[in-house]
Amino acid sequence: MARTTGSHSDITGPRIREVALDLFARRGFAAVSMRQIASGVGVQAGALYNYTPDKQSLLFGLMREHMEELLAARAAREVPDDPLAELEDFTRFHIAHHLERPDAVFISYMELRNLSPENFGLIETLRRAYEDQLEEILKRGVAVGVFDVPDTKIATLALIAMLTGVSTWYRPAGRLSVQQVETIYWDMVRKAVATA
Amino acid sequence: MARTTGSHSDITGPRIREVALDLFARRGFAAVSMRQIASGVGVQAGALYNYTPDKQSLLFGLMREHMEELLAARAAREVPDDPLAELEDFTRFHIAHHLERPDAVFISYMELRNLSPENFGLIETLRRAYEDQLEEILKRGVAVGVFDVPDTKIATLALIAMLTGVSTWYRPAGRLSVQQVETIYWDMVRKAVATA
Repeated sequence: MARTTGSHSDITGPRIREVALDLFARRGFAAVSMRQIASGVGVQAGALYNYTPDKQSLLFGLMREHMEELLAARAAREVPDDPLAELEDFTRFHIAHHLERPDAVFISYMELRNLSPENFGLIETLRRAYEDQLEEILKRGVAVGVFDVPDTKIATLALIAMLTGVSTWYRPAGRLSVQQVETIYWDMVRKAVATA
Repeated sequence: MARTTGSHSDITGPRIREVALDLFARRGFAAVSMRQIASGVGVQAGALYNYTPDKQSLLFGLMREHMEELLAARAAREVPDDPLAELEDFTRFHIAHHLERPDAVFISYMELRNLSPENFGLIETLRRAYEDQLEEILKRGVAVGVFDVPDTKIATLALIAMLTGVSTWYRPAGRLSVQQVETIYWDMVRKAVATA
C-alpha cells in the first residue's frame, strides 16, 4: 500500500498502520479521523492520502494483514501427523500468536461491522480458511476415533471463541506465563473433544 | 430514568432505550448522536434530555440493565443441589438467555471501552458477580471430586467466552434450534471439566 519511490515511504507506510491500529483500538474506528491519524504520524492530513485512499482501506488493510499473518504463521509450522498432537499445537499456537498482538485481535473483532460489505466478505473468507484448519483436525480425530465431537463445525467455533477469549483478560504482568495459560487451556480443549 | 409525571413518560423512556440499543448495536456508540436517537424515537433532540442527561448515561443504563437482568434471571432459577446438574443448568441458561438478546450482548462487549471509568467499574462488579457464580459451581465440583479443573478462575473465563461466543454465529433461521446448540455446548463443557 505504501509508495516505494519517496525516501520516507518505507517507514511512513508502516508508521501510518501502526498509528491507525493504536487509535482504532483505543478509541474505535468511528471516533478516529484521518486528521488524527496524520497528527499521530506527524504528517499533514493531505500527505496521508499518498499512502491510503481512505480510512476504510486502512481498517481493511490492518484486518487483512492480521489474518494473512495468522495463516502464514500457521503454515510455517511443522504440523505433527497425529490429530491429538496437532490439536495441542493448534491450541498453543492460537493462544501465543493472539497474545502477541492484542490490538490487532481487538480491532479484528470489534470493527468487523465497520468494514464495507465487500471487504467484510474478503476478511470472512480468510477467517473461514483458518477455522477450516481446526475443523479438519477435529474431523481427522473423529475419523480415527481419538475425538468424540458431535458437530465439528460448532466445536470449531466454540474452541476458537474460548481460545481467543484469552486476549480479553490476559495481562503479561499477571500471575500466569503465556505457556502456563496454554497448558491450562490445552487441558480443557483436550478433554472437551475426548472420547467418553 | 424516565419521568413518570408526563402522560407519555412511561412509553418514551423504554422507547429511547430501545432505539439507542438498536443504533448503538448497528453503528457503534461513537458514531451515534443524541439527535439521531431523538429522530428514531420521534421527539425533538431537546426532549431527550428530560429522560437522560447524556449518551454516556444511556449506554451505561443499557449495560447495567443487561447485567441486572442476567443476575435476576439466574437468581430466579431453582438451582439443583449437585455440581454437575448445576453446571448443566448454568450452561443452558447462559446460552438461551444471551441468544434472546443479541443486541444487548453485542454492545455489552463492544462498547465497554466507551464507558467512563466509574461506570466501567460498576459494570465490571456486576460481571464479576455473575462469573463468581460459575466459579463457585466449579469449586464445589472440584471439592466433591466430580470436576478436575486446574484453575477455576481461568476455567470460568474460558467457559464464559466459549458460551457467549454462540451469539456471534447463531441465527434463528439456521440448521440448529437453541436447545440443540445448548446440548452440543453442554457436551463440551461437561467433558472439559470432567475428571480424567
